[in-house]
Amino acid sequence: MKFKIAVLGTGNVASHLVPALENAGHTVTEVYGRNIAAAAKLCDSVYVAEPKEDLDFSDSQAEIFILALSDAAISNVADEIILPEESILVHTSGTVPLSILGYSSAAYTGILYPLQTFTKGREVDFEDVPFLIESEDQETLQKIKKLAKSLSNQVYLVKSKDRLALHVAAVFASNFTNHMIRLSEEIMGRQGLDFEMLKPLIIESISKSLQLGAKKAQTGPAVRGDYDTLDSHYQFLSYNEQVAEIYKLISQDIIDVN
Amino acid sequence: MKFKIAVLGTGNVASHLVPALENAGHTVTEVYGRNIAAAAKLCDSVYVAEPKEDLDFSDSQAEIFILALSDAAISNVADEIILPEESILVHTSGTVPLSILGYSSAAYTGILYPLQTFTKGREVDFEDVPFLIESEDQETLQKIKKLAKSLSNQVYLVKSKDRLALHVAAVFASNFTNHMIRLSEEIMGRQGLDFEMLKPLIIESISKSLQLGAKKAQTGPAVRGDYDTLDSHYQFLSYNEQVAEIYKLISQDIIDVN
Repeated sequence: MKFKIAVLGTGNVASHLVPALENAGHTVTEVYGRNIAAAAKLCDSVYVAEPKEDLDFSDSQAEIFILALSDAAISNVADEIILPEESILVHTSGTVPLSILGYSSAAYTGILYPLQTFTKGREVDFEDVPFLIESEDQETLQKIKKLAKSLSNQVYLVKSKDRLALHVAAVFASNFTNHMIRLSEEIMGRQGLDFEMLKPLIIESISKSLQLGAKKAQTGPAVRGDYDTLDSHYQFLSYNEQVAEIYKLISQDIIDVN
Repeated sequence: MKFKIAVLGTGNVASHLVPALENAGHTVTEVYGRNIAAAAKLCDSVYVAEPKEDLDFSDSQAEIFILALSDAAISNVADEIILPEESILVHTSGTVPLSILGYSSAAYTGILYPLQTFTKGREVDFEDVPFLIESEDQETLQKIKKLAKSLSNQVYLVKSKDRLALHVAAVFASNFTNHMIRLSEEIMGRQGLDFEMLKPLIIESISKSLQLGAKKAQTGPAVRGDYDTLDSHYQFLSYNEQVAEIYKLISQDIIDVN
């Protein structure tokens, strides 16, 4: 099933999504951007899409309208967009509830959330990106599912009630792992040591964690109950009280759950 | 320069090291293990090595003796081992100081520390493992360096005074990233959500972090200063006070350094 789709947004998600939609055989009819130049540039990456800077889509050929916008912008654009009859309006956010689209002129609403971190200039293969979808209307849900499956091998139905848990888990898995690496970089830099030497360890640790599960993969002084080492590390970090406290608290939690 | 080497230990490091030494053209003369069966099994993986369960190496042909033992076992074995004249004794630990080998019968001592996490059954390519080396004797240091370079493309001279900082940094980079993944697994499991859907995000986040540096790679509610989301996540975690505290403290640190 191929769709005619309008994409609203010109950021990281939109710029990855527009060419991926066309590669999957869909037609991108319009790209909306407050910055029309950015919208025009994104249109250049596909065959027929027209750039658009106003929200009157009453003459659009599209049947699905994707709000690939920042969380803050979604409700404003949803409230103002003028849609053709029988349109489906979806957003791509993992945090904004579906209900926020309820005030729009859309006949049907849903969520099409690609659970991945998108960075301009970094290739992302959508086939490996999990898409989390939701709709209260069964027919709409089936259409969103077909659209998601045309882009990715991993499509999950996730209800709004589970979305918060998922986001908290993603913060630990992504933002907090990144911050642990940041703290590690700083400790190395402060001592004049080359951070490069830790990269193979990080890659192998994460790979092991994902393969064996993090419980089995854990190593280090906390899981060994090596209090002398824990104490010397804590003392070492005394130049930064907050980081020392982070060290202590995570170590305690590793001790407690093992 | 090819060496004759005795390896003491039959654990994860030893079992990866013995075949790697032979692949690099060295001769493993003996493998010592308190469990002689484990030593014999490890000897089977190479050409000539003999299993050994006593520490009298006075007749050994080896010139380098590698203590690939747990931190706790190193000093006992170093104290008891009987070595030929002019022998070099090294250990493979990242945490045990070089000075602990000073009471041994070795003429020269050093450290040959492979900075990687080793798991039985998981292949590790030594070429990509950074080796951190140390010795107070220049000639010994050159020999250890040649040995390390025969195994790996990444060899670093790291002094004892930097070893503690390195280990603290490694705990953040490896053990703590693993624990963040563990907490993420638990949040997903508790909600009945499939942890598989977070794996592509983790892989891309880490890859981005190592490529761009963790400061530039950071995303999420803390770095955006999105206090509403931070608060709702903190409330969500109220079922586990310690994990909620970890969430709060790491988020605060992300806010403070950005």
